[in-house]
Amino acid sequence: MKRHAKKDYPLHLIRRHLEPGPVVLVSSAWKGKTNIMTMGWHMMMEFTPALFGCIISNQNHSFTLIRNAGECVVNVPTVELADTVAQIGNSTGGELDKFAAFGLTPARAAIVEAPLIAECYASFECRLYDGSQIEKYNFFIWEVVKAHVAPTPKYPRTIHYKGEGEFRVAGDTVSLRKRFRADYL
Amino acid sequence: MKRHAKKDYPLHLIRRHLEPGPVVLVSSAWKGKTNIMTMGWHMMMEFTPALFGCIISNQNHSFTLIRNAGECVVNVPTVELADTVAQIGNSTGGELDKFAAFGLTPARAAIVEAPLIAECYASFECRLYDGSQIEKYNFFIWEVVKAHVAPTPKYPRTIHYKGEGEFRVAGDTVSLRKRFRADYL
Repeated sequence: MKRHAKKDYPLHLIRRHLEPGPVVLVSSAWKGKTNIMTMGWHMMMEFTPALFGCIISNQNHSFTLIRNAGECVVNVPTVELADTVAQIGNSTGGELDKFAAFGLTPARAAIVEAPLIAECYASFECRLYDGSQIEKYNFFIWEVVKAHVAPTPKYPRTIHYKGEGEFRVAGDTVSLRKRFRADYL
Repeated sequence: MKRHAKKDYPLHLIRRHLEPGPVVLVSSAWKGKTNIMTMGWHMMMEFTPALFGCIISNQNHSFTLIRNAGECVVNVPTVELADTVAQIGNSTGGELDKFAAFGLTPARAAIVEAPLIAECYASFECRLYDGSQIEKYNFFIWEVVKAHVAPTPKYPRTIHYKGEGEFRVAGDTVSLRKRFRADYL
């Protein structure tokens, strides 16, 4: 599968890749073990610091690695990886090395231990910012501390999970820039 | 604009309409005043009870109405409403009646005071479930107490904001049902 050459990306602009609501692959590392999980329940929370919230069920093998490490990488796949995304979401890292099993390439992150996924066009290194809601909701509040985004594709065909085994693919782009106040763009 | 005849919808299935990450219109009511805001920072948090989290900036006129009422309605528009969505997001309810100004039709909700928006294909009545994170993050945790969804379109062309005045439209549908464990669908 195609690997994406990613570049440093401004943290205050990461909403461009996360706010549309794509399914993401979360990579983690703890004591020499890595894992990958598929995740769809997430949102932007703040521009600066770049805060990002998500639900990681404590039923996931990744939960323990991510909670112990207090770090993870949020990677954004496109439709070419849809089958892999579904398979990862339906297997457990207790049983296998997901990088090897699914032909994905770990790449060294700049700040955190967890690896980037080379086949994803965007990767965001995250450090735990606030763990106070984990116990009650499995809700993690992350600060994105480093962002990597490939310059192309300009309009990535991200996938958006709707249940029932179905994904919607990001399609047409509509620009309504003329309607926007400059400070709201 | 077209109004959608919505039907009662099971609460544990609302993720089908919210998890893909569409921009939504949040309607509110407080002391006889109503308002509408555009909102893109949100996520599913739990199936049962049906929990939904979102960020509502305290810079929004709607913030006060919604916080005081402890209720709102989350309405999902399709691309036909994109121009209206952008205009609502770039105006303030302190100045005008947004229903009248943008030609939208308020419809009576079943449980909450805030009106449904008839031109949206799905509307979710929300009651505040946990307000403990509002002060720190403008983060509201809602319980969806009643769901209304139009049976058609089956694959609504929702819009997903990516910044810079641009929206991606939900396009193709990819089914990977064969990859899913029955209990993960």
